[in-house]
Amino acid sequence: MDILKTNPAEIEVGVVGIGLMGSSIIVSLLASGHRVKAVAPIPADFADAGNKIKDQLNNCLHVGLLKNSVSYYFNRLEISTNYSCLANCALVMECVIEDIDIKSQVYKKITDVVPATTIIASNTSAIAITILQQLVSVPERFIGVHFAEPAYATRFMEITCGEHTDAKYAEWVFALAHHWGKEPTLLRKDIRGFITNRLMYAVYREIFHLVDSGKTTMEDADKAFRYSVGSWITLMGLFRRMDYTGLEDYAEIFKNLFPKLSNADHVPHIMEKIVEDNGRGIQNLKGLYPYTDKEAKEWERAFEAFNEDIFRLAALYPDNVAEKERILI
Amino acid sequence: MDILKTNPAEIEVGVVGIGLMGSSIIVSLLASGHRVKAVAPIPADFADAGNKIKDQLNNCLHVGLLKNSVSYYFNRLEISTNYSCLANCALVMECVIEDIDIKSQVYKKITDVVPATTIIASNTSAIAITILQQLVSVPERFIGVHFAEPAYATRFMEITCGEHTDAKYAEWVFALAHHWGKEPTLLRKDIRGFITNRLMYAVYREIFHLVDSGKTTMEDADKAFRYSVGSWITLMGLFRRMDYTGLEDYAEIFKNLFPKLSNADHVPHIMEKIVEDNGRGIQNLKGLYPYTDKEAKEWERAFEAFNEDIFRLAALYPDNVAEKERILI
Repeated sequence: MDILKTNPAEIEVGVVGIGLMGSSIIVSLLASGHRVKAVAPIPADFADAGNKIKDQLNNCLHVGLLKNSVSYYFNRLEISTNYSCLANCALVMECVIEDIDIKSQVYKKITDVVPATTIIASNTSAIAITILQQLVSVPERFIGVHFAEPAYATRFMEITCGEHTDAKYAEWVFALAHHWGKEPTLLRKDIRGFITNRLMYAVYREIFHLVDSGKTTMEDADKAFRYSVGSWITLMGLFRRMDYTGLEDYAEIFKNLFPKLSNADHVPHIMEKIVEDNGRGIQNLKGLYPYTDKEAKEWERAFEAFNEDIFRLAALYPDNVAEKERILI
Repeated sequence: MDILKTNPAEIEVGVVGIGLMGSSIIVSLLASGHRVKAVAPIPADFADAGNKIKDQLNNCLHVGLLKNSVSYYFNRLEISTNYSCLANCALVMECVIEDIDIKSQVYKKITDVVPATTIIASNTSAIAITILQQLVSVPERFIGVHFAEPAYATRFMEITCGEHTDAKYAEWVFALAHHWGKEPTLLRKDIRGFITNRLMYAVYREIFHLVDSGKTTMEDADKAFRYSVGSWITLMGLFRRMDYTGLEDYAEIFKNLFPKLSNADHVPHIMEKIVEDNGRGIQNLKGLYPYTDKEAKEWERAFEAFNEDIFRLAALYPDNVAEKERILI
């Protein structure tokens, strides 16, 4: 099989790991028309997986992402605890926890059953692809494919090459990602932290500095960011925004402001305290903000609803506003 | 008149400067029920102002922000080239260009006609309030009130004290801003660059570094930011997002990534080139991206439509998701 010439719809895709991300990735692949073989290395995930995936397929139906019935898609999925089900997969997505030893064992089990032509992808957002690809037998076919959660209702995707990845496979996945309804970015160099993470961590560094030094509060910073950046980011991105606002004052402000921004290289005080307290935010009701059990659940519901809303809204505004023919997948 | 005890709806508000921001601020104030006295220091703005404001009031009507007819609100506005119309205003908003000499002349003309009890506010986003307040006779009543564009259909507002501002007036404007349907933040210390600007410039510093060093492209960075941050920012803000995602990996990533982020203190190469070329983005079709005249117009139309959409969407998700009773103003 020459994977580069295969019709995307005919590709069987494997997924290893059926946690939060793994299950929504499975749903995204099913909704895109693939047959999916899913391996659950954790028994608890295996028991739970069927119902979880049916629920998410129902969400897809609700958002208008499915052409056929939920059962049509569900029947194209095989869930197993046995890696041998991956034998015919042209692409296998690894979605297990960010632990290099566990990932290493998983890659060994995958490569034991798939042909050398199979592309192996990791959904990691924390470990460099160049490091992970040293753990597989065909590193040039190893690649980073980073989804956002929930994978079936977000368009974000970062495709990242490691040092030894052959670009033609990255480009193949890039094309396939469009078939999945994504708006992928292709990072040809494996930089620490990927693009989006680096941008966000630059913001975190500055905002922790402003809060730690008493210049603003978490509440105000959150509010300001929601109502300022929130009012244009989904339409424009960063560079387009500068063009839109006329570019005039930026250079002058860069010159004045860059030397005043935080260059901190240490973990902020507030975050150190959270780690000491074993805070897990809404998960254990110990976060940067306080939560009752009811409030934590309300945030989960609100995000589910908001994500649907912004997904639909973003679909009305494609990359190039001139491409009016583009519609919700 | 004790301004702090006045019923917000009865306050007459003055606006000086009827450019892009000034006119949408006038519309925001009218839509909130104030009588408005507007001074147009530039004759061309004066000629144009009436029609521009009627158009924007029609936009407000379309978004559902008006309880009465467009003409009801328009009739509560007086536009003049003469500062004496400001005599009874409890609050005067200065919205002229970011030039300290021009602002100084404007403040002189305002303070010549208003009583010492009037609060004077600047919509500046570039000059420190502590500097501007030295130009007025009652600095404790001078304050920064920074709207986003278009002021009538955005909830963002940064209220900033200068070193000599009396906090009680800032708190009064803060309360008034809620009456305007804003989600204001109150910055008690006058820091260089305000909150939102500092956060965004931290992102700009990093993203120019990544693009300048060939690690990604403008197109990919824009795409990644739109579809990642865009999928949650309007709901959550930055700190809430960390709580939502469980907080677990942040401290570790801070430790690893902060030392690798850009600490540049100079204007990025790409931006220097734009300044040399006198690029003004979509305004003169010379930007970071290329534009035809048609494309520039399409971006303007798209932003107008998107802003309406995201404004309505954000209204469904107030600050605290538990406050279900809150609705579109």
